[in-house]
Amino acid sequence: MKKGLFITIEGCDGCGKSTVTSAVVQLLKQQGYAIVHTREPGGIDIAEQIRQVILNPDNTAMDERCEALLYAASRRQHLAEKVIPAIERGETVICERFVDSSLAYQGYARGIGIDEVANINAFAIDGHMPDKTIYMDVPAEIGLSRVSRRGEKDRLDQEQLSFHEKVHEGYEIVMRNDRNRFIRVDASQPLETVIDVVYTTIKELIDE
Amino acid sequence: MKKGLFITIEGCDGCGKSTVTSAVVQLLKQQGYAIVHTREPGGIDIAEQIRQVILNPDNTAMDERCEALLYAASRRQHLAEKVIPAIERGETVICERFVDSSLAYQGYARGIGIDEVANINAFAIDGHMPDKTIYMDVPAEIGLSRVSRRGEKDRLDQEQLSFHEKVHEGYEIVMRNDRNRFIRVDASQPLETVIDVVYTTIKELIDE
Repeated sequence: MKKGLFITIEGCDGCGKSTVTSAVVQLLKQQGYAIVHTREPGGIDIAEQIRQVILNPDNTAMDERCEALLYAASRRQHLAEKVIPAIERGETVICERFVDSSLAYQGYARGIGIDEVANINAFAIDGHMPDKTIYMDVPAEIGLSRVSRRGEKDRLDQEQLSFHEKVHEGYEIVMRNDRNRFIRVDASQPLETVIDVVYTTIKELIDE
Repeated sequence: MKKGLFITIEGCDGCGKSTVTSAVVQLLKQQGYAIVHTREPGGIDIAEQIRQVILNPDNTAMDERCEALLYAASRRQHLAEKVIPAIERGETVICERFVDSSLAYQGYARGIGIDEVANINAFAIDGHMPDKTIYMDVPAEIGLSRVSRRGEKDRLDQEQLSFHEKVHEGYEIVMRNDRNRFIRVDASQPLETVIDVVYTTIKELIDE
């Protein structure tokens, strides 16, 4: 059986990943495409337990390398239990956030080093890189203002704007290193436009 | 200030690590040495939370690479919060199990590959390798019979003797790759003899 596509959606907090991906997946399913829409930890029990450790607001003493290893561990379990089986069944997997998030956040913005974080993630994904990655590009201050409107408060949202700007820079560096995999979408456009662009892009990838 | 020594104690399950190390640490403290005796997760809250995910008997679906990343994450937090500060204060840290356990168990016995597991652990420890490692050598079947007498039942203890034999082989390979760091002790000798050998070895290392 032909393997399914593995597509990831990336971007800073507040870029609209969830809203856009949900709308696009609904449109694709209406057209009869077999799609698995997920994001880590993706309802996978073990990955969920790991994520609870990462996001626990009490864990302020968490070392940044520990955090990066936990993200990689959660990613591995989600990949092994949910993503790989779906791809093997020939379905298209659309996953919000994947390795590039760790490279931009932990590798660049937290200063661990993109290559070092790429290294532990290479272990985690063991060759299962996304076929294509859609980067939803929005200025850091717009993304952050959308996040604060949501009123969410976990440990990560307490970070400052300067951190979010570094994440943005991090994504730019990661994209330069892997140009063929990335498709950049201007996510500061009206929501309907962004949905339409992402829908058309993914539809063409599947139909190819 | 002169940095303290970092000594790890390794060996298969049931080799007597805890009993021997506790006795040796007591003797060293009686002689006035400043010793921190620890083992992962070592009372470090975050490392403890991670360890609960690893050892949860319900987590039978855990992928082996996920498990290896979780061990590395727990190790990192314990190292950063407890081991490094003690070494910096000039104290001797004696730690039961460290990187070599992951190389022997996950890398070799579970078949992920020693080099690959060494790679993620290099990220976790970021240069803080032990100065010396005492390997308590005991045949796998003796170790395993001691473990079953304890009546412990977590996920790892349900493994078969063949797995424990592979762990033993794994340690042998790891030691061949780093001969200068390892000191092998015959742990099938009477307990008092083993304690005396380990005590004398560590005392000489500190006094050097």
